[in-house]
Amino acid sequence: MYFATFAYNNIEQTGILSKDQEVIIPMKEIFNKLNKEAPQTLKEFVETSDDHLIQSIKDILEISDFEGIPVDQIKLCAPIPYPSRNLICLGKNYIDHAKEVVGLPGANDEIPKFPIYFSKIAHPAIGHQDMIKNHKALTDMIDYEVELAVVIGRDGINIKIEEVEEYIFGYTIVNDVSARNLQRKHEQWFRGKCLETFCPMGPYLVHKSEIPFPVTLDLKCSINGEIRQNSNTENLIFDIPYIISDLSKGMYLRTGDIIITGTPSGVGLGFKPFKFLKSGDVVECYIEKIGTLTNTVE
Amino acid sequence: MYFATFAYNNIEQTGILSKDQEVIIPMKEIFNKLNKEAPQTLKEFVETSDDHLIQSIKDILEISDFEGIPVDQIKLCAPIPYPSRNLICLGKNYIDHAKEVVGLPGANDEIPKFPIYFSKIAHPAIGHQDMIKNHKALTDMIDYEVELAVVIGRDGINIKIEEVEEYIFGYTIVNDVSARNLQRKHEQWFRGKCLETFCPMGPYLVHKSEIPFPVTLDLKCSINGEIRQNSNTENLIFDIPYIISDLSKGMYLRTGDIIITGTPSGVGLGFKPFKFLKSGDVVECYIEKIGTLTNTVE
Repeated sequence: MYFATFAYNNIEQTGILSKDQEVIIPMKEIFNKLNKEAPQTLKEFVETSDDHLIQSIKDILEISDFEGIPVDQIKLCAPIPYPSRNLICLGKNYIDHAKEVVGLPGANDEIPKFPIYFSKIAHPAIGHQDMIKNHKALTDMIDYEVELAVVIGRDGINIKIEEVEEYIFGYTIVNDVSARNLQRKHEQWFRGKCLETFCPMGPYLVHKSEIPFPVTLDLKCSINGEIRQNSNTENLIFDIPYIISDLSKGMYLRTGDIIITGTPSGVGLGFKPFKFLKSGDVVECYIEKIGTLTNTVE
Repeated sequence: MYFATFAYNNIEQTGILSKDQEVIIPMKEIFNKLNKEAPQTLKEFVETSDDHLIQSIKDILEISDFEGIPVDQIKLCAPIPYPSRNLICLGKNYIDHAKEVVGLPGANDEIPKFPIYFSKIAHPAIGHQDMIKNHKALTDMIDYEVELAVVIGRDGINIKIEEVEEYIFGYTIVNDVSARNLQRKHEQWFRGKCLETFCPMGPYLVHKSEIPFPVTLDLKCSINGEIRQNSNTENLIFDIPYIISDLSKGMYLRTGDIIITGTPSGVGLGFKPFKFLKSGDVVECYIEKIGTLTNTVE
């Protein structure tokens, strides 16, 4: 199932994409049929749903004839615009990306022996087709990073590697937009990752039942149609079971937490000369089985 | 005014310390007199209060004769155990602390020319007299860091230095407990700052009207009665007006955000040999006009 947060007639609500991907069925109609109160947001849905509810929804979608709203009449929003905590991010988690930044000022030149974790603010995350602000007064080094995002579905601490999938709700795409000058200037990466609109997310939150585990998905990022990043999540240095098990050592992962797993080579910083984003650029982040998250630079 | 989150007869609620500091007056009683619905949490109070409400509360406390609950009958909790976003932290923001870590592996030896920002999870922050877990399987390098915490009182972006105080709600103490081995191992500092119970906060959230601006407060940290850290917030390299103005460039600070301003010299990592926390150690973090936040290590 593909879950969406969307606006229709300027009212924000949640829904599920139909199998033919032509209409969105509002969550409130589905919950009406189930005689339950619909969650206000996908965050609330993730926090309150369980396997039984997911199955009931699948069943009701099978047997019912919902009209739905044509996808060309809605505006997709970030699936979870206001997570309860910052996104947890992985740095240099593809070998080819770790290699492309070797020798740059401020970079540690080694391939990471352990995961590099930092955090990113998403208050709010922006959605498909929203605009990335250019923040001209602060930076002329805005970069793109396509990343597979994992949404946690259940609280857990000291999670065993072989049980990780049970703690996942699903997947989406995050473009970890970064101001490279601020990332370097402030030593720790946080500041350069957190400017307003720097967290595009979407287009859908895809339930884990759609994606075989372990996850091997093609991912790409193109700028104005030119493919810059092109890899597969099987190339992660630290894979999803490792990351979630490692992060949960001594620290609760909470339902609704979002972990973004790192970006492959081909970022603007990796080119000589650099290829940073310019006003008007169209950034398309694609991940197999999830879709394409498109944003334009102001 | 000194705001508290506290438990009495195992029920968590909010209140205000009396002028003689002998009793806590439950917020629900104060709001009853104001014919308003009391906020459920201090976070909700900070989000919904304004100068007018603060003044009304001051007035009603002046003229009313609340009985209150003796402070020795309550258990103080973290004032804001579940902030909406991670705490924003400052690294190496006192010169003497920046100097004491020079030469250590993984440290950049320069005095920062720009603020070093990173984030810390507080879900939940622990309160006065709660226990810091020793996480023996993960670390034997747990360190203490007394820090002045600023709680934001109003959303703002691109805040001018001279207007910063208007955006502040008040102040509290945070002990930025850190696992030094994890902080180094994972390159970025996030992971070593976020183990469970590593965010002691309190004892009170002190309204800004109690503390003249700019803020010059003594702060100390002692371990089993031995003073290790002893400084004043006037020694901050980047002061509160600078930090809040700088952070808000291109990024909204949100009501309820908590910024912790850095720690002075005397952390365990600064001694030769190191003086890390051991099981049973009593950590007292004192800041003038706020109080003492005491925690014991498991």
